[in-house]
Amino acid sequence: MNNQQLFENIQKKGSFLCVGLDTDLKKIPAFLLETSDPMFAFNKEIIDATAEYTVAYKPNLAFYESEGLEGWRSLEKTVHYLRDNYPDIFLIADAKRGDIGNTSSMYARAFFEKMKFDAVTVAPYMGEDSVKPFLAYEGKRVVLLALTSNKGASDFQFIADNTGEKLFEKVLRISQKWGNEENMMYVVGATKAEELTGIRKFVPGHFLLVPGVGAQGGSLQEVAKYGLNAQCGLLVNSSRAIIYASNGQDFAVKAGESAKLIRDEMAELLISNGLIA
Amino acid sequence: MNNQQLFENIQKKGSFLCVGLDTDLKKIPAFLLETSDPMFAFNKEIIDATAEYTVAYKPNLAFYESEGLEGWRSLEKTVHYLRDNYPDIFLIADAKRGDIGNTSSMYARAFFEKMKFDAVTVAPYMGEDSVKPFLAYEGKRVVLLALTSNKGASDFQFIADNTGEKLFEKVLRISQKWGNEENMMYVVGATKAEELTGIRKFVPGHFLLVPGVGAQGGSLQEVAKYGLNAQCGLLVNSSRAIIYASNGQDFAVKAGESAKLIRDEMAELLISNGLIA
Repeated sequence: MNNQQLFENIQKKGSFLCVGLDTDLKKIPAFLLETSDPMFAFNKEIIDATAEYTVAYKPNLAFYESEGLEGWRSLEKTVHYLRDNYPDIFLIADAKRGDIGNTSSMYARAFFEKMKFDAVTVAPYMGEDSVKPFLAYEGKRVVLLALTSNKGASDFQFIADNTGEKLFEKVLRISQKWGNEENMMYVVGATKAEELTGIRKFVPGHFLLVPGVGAQGGSLQEVAKYGLNAQCGLLVNSSRAIIYASNGQDFAVKAGESAKLIRDEMAELLISNGLIA
Repeated sequence: MNNQQLFENIQKKGSFLCVGLDTDLKKIPAFLLETSDPMFAFNKEIIDATAEYTVAYKPNLAFYESEGLEGWRSLEKTVHYLRDNYPDIFLIADAKRGDIGNTSSMYARAFFEKMKFDAVTVAPYMGEDSVKPFLAYEGKRVVLLALTSNKGASDFQFIADNTGEKLFEKVLRISQKWGNEENMMYVVGATKAEELTGIRKFVPGHFLLVPGVGAQGGSLQEVAKYGLNAQCGLLVNSSRAIIYASNGQDFAVKAGESAKLIRDEMAELLISNGLIA
């Protein structure tokens, strides 16, 4: 899916929401634990209830790996289900991978060939040859960590060299030589929305994945104010605030309602910024 | 396994070798592809032929994930096999994980609870709260990326602030507040063995995981010269040079011979440095 197609989906749905599938057996409704595949059963209901309001889903790999083989099976089933039933959905593997070239090639195969993800989150620490193997896949994307939304982001990401340029700014600047606006995106934490102005100077045309709206804090209005570009250019993620809106029989209904509330706010922002008629 | 136990195993075997299980269906002997689980069949033979000469194994997660569910099953079987048959082996998940706290907790559960690894490699970019959940497990370790052996290491790891301190040095210095010599190790690339002198100033007592001896280049003599400490303090990894020493019927025999050659060189180094009698 290229930027124009992604933008058209955003316009059609009035939404730049990404729903994070951080599916945790300790948090899903207890009655689902009696089914043969609780993680998939939960995801299927959540997807069916929210797909109308979202343009992207982002399974968080850690949650599936923590259940071992069963979790990996649930993940594969979830990806198949999305691909078969919602072909327009943009599908991100939130995996934070990255290793030497021949190893990153294997991760790329895992997420782009074995499973049909559109994009995978990648950590930049190991540099160019750890990222490029993911870019070898036509039509697929890297979502590179630049500025994350967690407390530990301040440990290294703000370190400045003697020109004053910070590490996350270097990541934005240098990594652009590796790919382009169509095959690179960036993770940019929403707890510092005003930082988006500076970030847009480095990457005016790229799509940004913004975590942290919802349970991690961060204001959608602020993110839109500083982050929107002519093709929207934003995917704003919400995980827990949507998928755990209720843990009763009505969990899917409540998830849908929560997603709709965010979609409605996003639609207004898209209209007021002239991005949909 | 604490540092003293690891050192005793090193002394007993005359080896500080770690064998990397980068098991690739395209590289293993063709006749194994007819078995029901080729990755596990290969690993089992390699392990049985090399366990005498190595103190650690390091499955590279990417290779297993690239085969999807089947690959994950082969990995779990490999870990079980090692735990059941070689209880003294130190077992590293080379996974390069790291995410916000609640997500890193899930990765820790995957590698320390679902599978009984002793350690997992972690990328430092997201800082303290991305690393600490792994340290919450008594007797388990983080192997934090500091200086990697790939070309892309030069993109960000050598960036210096206005005091001259480089990013990888900051990682070494700052991360020590998060753990201790028993639960933290560091990845230090062997292509720059003389850098180990500077690195030992930051982490004199920690065990270091040194990749890159073998197919990635790097001299064992140099690594030992600059890296050994009073408890050895080194695990030197070799993957392809051992496990793909032959792709014929004799692959396991040849792997054992390759591992023995490295062990013999290591034993001499341990003796000449007074670390074994």
